[in-house]
Amino acid sequence: MEGRRAIGWAARDTSGLLSPYSFNLRKTGPEDVVLKVLYCGIDHTDLHQMRNEIPSTIYPLVPGHEVVGEIAESGSEVTKFRVGDKVGVGCIIGSCGECSSCKSNKENYCTNKIFTVNGTYQDGTPTHGGFSSAMVVHQKFVVRIPEKLAPEQAAPLLCAGVTAYSPLKQFFNGSNKVLRVGILGLGGVGHLGVIIAKAMGHHVSVISSSGNKKEEALEYLGADSFLVSSDSAEMEAAAGSLDYILDTVPALHNIQACLSLLKIEGRLVIVGASPQPLQFIASDLIIGKKTIGGSFIGSMEETEELLEFWAEKGLTTMIEVAKMDYVNKAFERMERNDVRYRFVLDVAGSKLE
Amino acid sequence: MEGRRAIGWAARDTSGLLSPYSFNLRKTGPEDVVLKVLYCGIDHTDLHQMRNEIPSTIYPLVPGHEVVGEIAESGSEVTKFRVGDKVGVGCIIGSCGECSSCKSNKENYCTNKIFTVNGTYQDGTPTHGGFSSAMVVHQKFVVRIPEKLAPEQAAPLLCAGVTAYSPLKQFFNGSNKVLRVGILGLGGVGHLGVIIAKAMGHHVSVISSSGNKKEEALEYLGADSFLVSSDSAEMEAAAGSLDYILDTVPALHNIQACLSLLKIEGRLVIVGASPQPLQFIASDLIIGKKTIGGSFIGSMEETEELLEFWAEKGLTTMIEVAKMDYVNKAFERMERNDVRYRFVLDVAGSKLE
Repeated sequence: MEGRRAIGWAARDTSGLLSPYSFNLRKTGPEDVVLKVLYCGIDHTDLHQMRNEIPSTIYPLVPGHEVVGEIAESGSEVTKFRVGDKVGVGCIIGSCGECSSCKSNKENYCTNKIFTVNGTYQDGTPTHGGFSSAMVVHQKFVVRIPEKLAPEQAAPLLCAGVTAYSPLKQFFNGSNKVLRVGILGLGGVGHLGVIIAKAMGHHVSVISSSGNKKEEALEYLGADSFLVSSDSAEMEAAAGSLDYILDTVPALHNIQACLSLLKIEGRLVIVGASPQPLQFIASDLIIGKKTIGGSFIGSMEETEELLEFWAEKGLTTMIEVAKMDYVNKAFERMERNDVRYRFVLDVAGSKLE
Repeated sequence: MEGRRAIGWAARDTSGLLSPYSFNLRKTGPEDVVLKVLYCGIDHTDLHQMRNEIPSTIYPLVPGHEVVGEIAESGSEVTKFRVGDKVGVGCIIGSCGECSSCKSNKENYCTNKIFTVNGTYQDGTPTHGGFSSAMVVHQKFVVRIPEKLAPEQAAPLLCAGVTAYSPLKQFFNGSNKVLRVGILGLGGVGHLGVIIAKAMGHHVSVISSSGNKKEEALEYLGADSFLVSSDSAEMEAAAGSLDYILDTVPALHNIQACLSLLKIEGRLVIVGASPQPLQFIASDLIIGKKTIGGSFIGSMEETEELLEFWAEKGLTTMIEVAKMDYVNKAFERMERNDVRYRFVLDVAGSKLE
């Protein structure tokens, strides 16, 4: 199979502005599928890469790592999918297959993983994401979208959703006891964290820098309580009350204040990467036997689990669907937190050229 | 039983200098023992308290929380000990008995624990430590010293030893697999950490700011390798090689460099409290699923376990025994790391007045 032509939207320089870009997809191998992109979520990481804020961007850059598509063609050795299947692709599209992470189905921790965007494929070609008419992906890194799930609803689950699901599920570990969880930051990842933790039957407190999202957190997302981190009286009253905090804030913030919310042996797990170093006081970790951890997206297995869980529980992501010609505006609005809570691009329904 | 007279050495002001001090012990209750102090270890925390460096010191302050003694008298309801038994007292001499930490034999994490030194007993009297002829302690906070163990050898195990033992044992969790452990800092706690981890059958790397202690770490303590944290080539070659790091450094230091030594899912556990905040880069925790935790001394149960383990394996602490009139000099030397690796005061063999 020869590499076919695709039309995407690419950033060309550090302005990060996206415009139409025509390129060749890599040649498809026997275990690859070609997918026609239907929808693609938009994420803060896209913006960082588009502007080369984590200096490593190779332009032109076609972003998008929450990709929902339809199988258009499948290689001779593809067993998992048939033409017409609805499928998803997340943050990574390759890994070494040999390391202990890969061998234990945690390919998201493989140190040689290949990112969906701004990576380099084994054949030397740059990887391009889902802001594009089509993609070629190895079947191992493609997940099935359950029939019950609308494809645009599935998009945010493929990165933001599994980023929240993987650590929460590992922490709850099927516990029958109702655990008390804090979700720090109510953006793309945070809002899905609230929905997931509630659907798993736990008690959820949203911790936010302001009270702006209080009503929607409690009424629409179903959170049990809402803490404003700048309100020291409120924070003090909640000291020592949480088993676990999922920290989704991708910017410099005060984790020390959150550590004090944890019970003895409580854990704070960070999934949003602040570019500046974070600080903590050692004695608080010591005396309370607390831990600060990190978690990176989720495995392919966990992604499939989340999609099934979402469909089975009849959950709903809060998204705003936009056409491709709105993409630059969408990033602008995302940057000022003016979206509830995730933009999803209707790629197949847009004029790309 | 009336409160009897004791003679200790106390700090009177922020100079931290110790001099003889006569005081009344609290009255003994039915579950208390009176112990004649034989030996007492000296520790950095003593110095911080003597100088009010963690502002909370009530003067006069009698330090010492690695106390080995002999039962001189026992209350009517004391079942654990008889007069003449060799026993030990560590950092805490009371806890609430009601909280979940107390109920799960982790009284070291009780938020109402009473410290051996500079605490306030239930009856309102200040607690005084083991730089004293005698102490009164509730039997629950007294451990038996195995007969095989020389009393002066046992002293450093009661705080420094169990501070290393508790997190290491919990991490190894009886693993048959040889795990790769780093011990950061080679002082009182660190040297015992090396001995314990080796005696448990694991691979030990000492990580130190200079190469000064390399020979003794490898030859006398039995470490398998030695890393100088300022040698970036050496540190880079060891990147991703350790399962676990026990961080014993009680001062500001670069934990980021240590995090890079950890494998995927590796853990750094801090037992030395830097007064200044420590820093880390969130993305390193995230991508490597690493954790930073804390651990505070150990439980009474773990202290007894360690003493049995030490006696059974025939291990030796490296100590320097000194008389009480050398104590101010001993602190001075400890402060400039001029001790291999722990001073132990021969209290019973000293003229105290």
